[in-house]
Amino acid sequence: MRNNNRAKRAIVLLSGGLDSAVTLAVAGKQGYDCYCLIFDYGQRHKREISSAKKIAVAAGCDYRLVKIQFPWKGSSLLDDRIKITQSVAARRSGDIPSTYVPARNIIFLSFAISYAEAINASAVFIGAHQEDYSGYPDCRSEFFRAFRPVVAAGTRTGVQKGNIRIVTPLIDKGKSRIIKLGQRLGVDFKLTWSCYGGGKRPCGKCDSCYYRAKGFKEAGLKDPLL
Amino acid sequence: MRNNNRAKRAIVLLSGGLDSAVTLAVAGKQGYDCYCLIFDYGQRHKREISSAKKIAVAAGCDYRLVKIQFPWKGSSLLDDRIKITQSVAARRSGDIPSTYVPARNIIFLSFAISYAEAINASAVFIGAHQEDYSGYPDCRSEFFRAFRPVVAAGTRTGVQKGNIRIVTPLIDKGKSRIIKLGQRLGVDFKLTWSCYGGGKRPCGKCDSCYYRAKGFKEAGLKDPLL
Repeated sequence: MRNNNRAKRAIVLLSGGLDSAVTLAVAGKQGYDCYCLIFDYGQRHKREISSAKKIAVAAGCDYRLVKIQFPWKGSSLLDDRIKITQSVAARRSGDIPSTYVPARNIIFLSFAISYAEAINASAVFIGAHQEDYSGYPDCRSEFFRAFRPVVAAGTRTGVQKGNIRIVTPLIDKGKSRIIKLGQRLGVDFKLTWSCYGGGKRPCGKCDSCYYRAKGFKEAGLKDPLL
Repeated sequence: MRNNNRAKRAIVLLSGGLDSAVTLAVAGKQGYDCYCLIFDYGQRHKREISSAKKIAVAAGCDYRLVKIQFPWKGSSLLDDRIKITQSVAARRSGDIPSTYVPARNIIFLSFAISYAEAINASAVFIGAHQEDYSGYPDCRSEFFRAFRPVVAAGTRTGVQKGNIRIVTPLIDKGKSRIIKLGQRLGVDFKLTWSCYGGGKRPCGKCDSCYYRAKGFKEAGLKDPLL
């Protein structure tokens, strides 16, 4: 049953990975009527997209797909010619992994805010977390804190109805805590997809596979994809 | 001749209207090697897009076109069923015009920042101005001021190389001053397109036509499109 109360409508950014699946479950648990937003941005791991759709459907939620063709590259996730580096090595050298997509979360959040305005939602949920592997500047809490005044100053909603909340329920959680939380909330991890490679089964080698495996191990659970 | 110096590369958001054409001329005058960014976002006034391309080519600049399909509406510029209201009336009633597109400039700036990161540019120019007709929250200087910390915290460039400047050279100028400035800089206004309608000639009735005509009149110049 749809909730027309603005206070209880939320946009949830859904990548198809387990973090965003858990985030959707958290938003639902908090009583939000969730509208999922999925991006097809030319990522190598297209499988993510079908996973995201399945996760939305399993949760009984509407979803919208935004297609973006980046007319520039600058990331190994968009460009076959750039090698997918291991973030562990990148972090040791103080660098940011090659999988960083220029300004990706700024763009994704912007679309989420637009969608929130269009359907009169009061919150946007995003499953970013600053621990673990990413080393991405746009997954840190200081980035999300900085984004809030933009919405307050730069949107009709912010000016007329009060701000749209940007909610990051996983921001300080590690992978194993996220997995345990998801299990408690009944997330079907079989529907999620994490691998950066484009294969039919997880490659087991990329950062995303590595941290997923580590997370399940530390949580004392078995990954249903393996 | 291409300038490889980061400090002198800029992204210029180009709509095809006269404000962004003047902004491109300003950036060029300041010595920037300009890379234009044009959006096809389902706007009624498609003619804008071909105008933008012509303006970029006339200035000898590269351009990139980003296609966005908004899977939601919420604006008369995207939805034929919503009447294009006159902003003068809207402003009198304290409202925001129906032509407001949810979070449009947040989205456009986000792509510009991504492009800047991908080609290692140090500045983004946008021709927004808060005077005159718009009444759009995302054309105000407080919005642009709020955006800067997002870039500083949320991008690889911001973290590693110093911020990407967001430059709004027209922010406090009225239409007639913008037109006079463009004339001094040699902008060919015949290439620009302002009308919100989708016709072959300016409708003469929409806000954009109204303020353009007023601007030319106050500048003591003739609009070459009429």
